[in-house]
Amino acid sequence: MPALTMGDPAGIGPELTIKAWETHAIPFVWIGDPVLLGDQIPYEVLADIREADQPLFARALPVLPVPLAEAVTPGKPDPVNGAAVVASITLATELTLAGAASAVVTNPISKHVLRQAGFRHPGHTEFLAELCGTPGEEVMMLASPRLKVVPVTVHVSLRRVLETLTTERIVRVGQITAASLRQDFGLEAPRLAVAGLNPHAGENGLMGDEERDIIAPAIAALQAQGIDAFGPLPPDTMFTEAARERYDAALCMYHDQALIPLKTLDMASGVNATLGLPIVRTSPDHGTAFDIAGRNIADVSSLIAALRMARKMSAHRRAYQKEAKA
Amino acid sequence: MPALTMGDPAGIGPELTIKAWETHAIPFVWIGDPVLLGDQIPYEVLADIREADQPLFARALPVLPVPLAEAVTPGKPDPVNGAAVVASITLATELTLAGAASAVVTNPISKHVLRQAGFRHPGHTEFLAELCGTPGEEVMMLASPRLKVVPVTVHVSLRRVLETLTTERIVRVGQITAASLRQDFGLEAPRLAVAGLNPHAGENGLMGDEERDIIAPAIAALQAQGIDAFGPLPPDTMFTEAARERYDAALCMYHDQALIPLKTLDMASGVNATLGLPIVRTSPDHGTAFDIAGRNIADVSSLIAALRMARKMSAHRRAYQKEAKA
Repeated sequence: MPALTMGDPAGIGPELTIKAWETHAIPFVWIGDPVLLGDQIPYEVLADIREADQPLFARALPVLPVPLAEAVTPGKPDPVNGAAVVASITLATELTLAGAASAVVTNPISKHVLRQAGFRHPGHTEFLAELCGTPGEEVMMLASPRLKVVPVTVHVSLRRVLETLTTERIVRVGQITAASLRQDFGLEAPRLAVAGLNPHAGENGLMGDEERDIIAPAIAALQAQGIDAFGPLPPDTMFTEAARERYDAALCMYHDQALIPLKTLDMASGVNATLGLPIVRTSPDHGTAFDIAGRNIADVSSLIAALRMARKMSAHRRAYQKEAKA
Repeated sequence: MPALTMGDPAGIGPELTIKAWETHAIPFVWIGDPVLLGDQIPYEVLADIREADQPLFARALPVLPVPLAEAVTPGKPDPVNGAAVVASITLATELTLAGAASAVVTNPISKHVLRQAGFRHPGHTEFLAELCGTPGEEVMMLASPRLKVVPVTVHVSLRRVLETLTTERIVRVGQITAASLRQDFGLEAPRLAVAGLNPHAGENGLMGDEERDIIAPAIAALQAQGIDAFGPLPPDTMFTEAARERYDAALCMYHDQALIPLKTLDMASGVNATLGLPIVRTSPDHGTAFDIAGRNIADVSSLIAALRMARKMSAHRRAYQKEAKA
C-alpha cells in the first residue's frame, strides 16, 4: 500500500487526504497528525503500517501518527510544524525503502516555509533522493493520461538553460527515463521523442545550433545503447494527437516546453513522478494552495491520479524485479 | 471576395484550392495558372476580379490567370516558376489594396525555392508588408477556434530571443494586436494575456529577471494607453481551458511558447493572420508539404479556416472603418 505524506498541514493536503479516502478509489496509509482529520472521516491509528489492509481502508483511513507541534490554521503556514512535515516524508521514505510501503506519494509542501524551519534541501524531490542515498539521480516526469514529459532542465531561467544544457545530461535523463518506462510502466521497448531547443528544431542551423551540437549527439549516444530515441523534433508539432502516438515519453529541453503541452491538454490530472530512485514516488501536480485551504473547494483529481499511478508503477516494478531475479 | 494566391505550384496549394472550391464553404477568387486545375473542377478565367460573384463561384472556380513558365511535377519545385509565384502574391495584394478583393489568402510558398529564383525578402509576410508600404509593422497571429496567440519574437533561436526581446517590441506588438482585435475581430475591449519568459514567470526573480526588467514595464505601458493587458503569467498554466476564458489573445515571448499550445490544441484548423497591415491577410498554418504533393491526401481544413477568417476579418474591418468615418 502506498504511504501518503502529510504535506504542509496549513495547505490543501489534509482536505485532499480526506477527499481521497472518501472516494475509496485507491487504498493508502496516511502519515500525519490525526488532529487534522477532526471528525470528518473515520480513521484508525496504527502502530505498524503492516496492519493496513483493504478491509481496514474500506471502513477507516489508516494513519501512522506524526504529531504536529502547534495547532493549524488553514492558509496560515507555521514553520514550527516544519519538523513534523519533514518527519512524515522521512518515515514514508524509510518504510518504502524497507518494503513495508509500496510507494511514497507526497502531499504538497512549501519550500519557503520549510526553509524558515531550517530545511536545507533545494526541494522535495532532492530531499527524497538524499534519503534514498541516490542524490543527483532524480529525474522529474510529468504524466497525464495523454502525455508523459520529462524536462531535462527544470527550475532554471531560460538563460540558464542555454548555459547548462549538455549532451551528458540529456543522455543521463534519457537512460533513466527509458529504464523507468521499462520497469515502472511495463514497456519493453520504450520510445523516446527528443525535442529540439529552438523553433523548427533549429531548421538546419538557421535558428540555433544546439540541435546539432548538443541534442543530436545525445540521441546518437542513446541509440548506441539500444534505446529507441529519436529527434530532435520541432517542438511545436510534437505534441499533437497524431505525434503523441509515436512515442511513450517526450524528453524536453526546458520546463515550459514540457509543461505547456501537459497542462494545456490536461490540467487537473497531471501527476509528478520521480524517476531514478530506488523507490516509486509520485505527487499531485500542484502546490499547497494556501489561498484556498480550508474552504473545501480543492480538486482531488491530481492526488487520486498520483495514488493510482503509484500503485501501477510499484506493481510493474515488483513484477520487473521478480523477473530479473528469476 | 478574398483573393487566394497560387503558392508553390509543386506543393499542395493546387490540390487544396481544388478541395476548397469543392466544399463551397467560402467563395474566393484564385490567382494562378489554370493548367494546375486540369479537368478536375470547372473554372472560369476572368479578365476582371469584379466579375466574380456567388452565382459564378457556385458553378465554377473564378480564376485570374498568372501563367507558369514551365510544366509542374508535384513534389518537385522548380525555381523557374518563382516569378509566377511572386506575381500571384503581388496581384492579390494590389487588388486588395485597391479594394477590388476583400483580403489576401496565401497558399504556402517555399522560401528556399524562391530564394533560388532571386526572391530577396525574409519571408512571405515581410514581402506582403513591403508591397503594402508598411515594412516592419507586420505581426503574426496564429488563431484556432480555441486560442489566439501572437509571438513577439518569431523565427529566431532561443538565444537570440534573450538577446533581442525588448519592452518597446512587446508594447508595439501589443498595440497592433489590440487594434486588430478591435477592428478585425469586433472586440470593443480586447483582453491581452502577456506571458512571462521563464518558468513560473521567473518566480520573483528566482528564475530570471526578464519579467521584472522587460515584460512588466511593457504591460504597464500598454495599460497606460488604455489597453487591457495583464501578466506576466506563468507560461505553463496560461493555456488551460479555464485560463483561456480570461483573454482574447495571448502575447507570447517566443515561437514555441505560442505554437506549442496552439498546435497541441488544434493542429488542423490553425490560421496564420498577419496583423498591422492596411489589408487583411490570412494563410493556412502549414507549409508546401512537397512530400505529399500530388497524392490527394492533403487536409484542406486549415485553408478553409483561413478563408473563413479572412471573410470574417474583412467584414469586421469594413464595418469598423465605416463607423470610424461616420
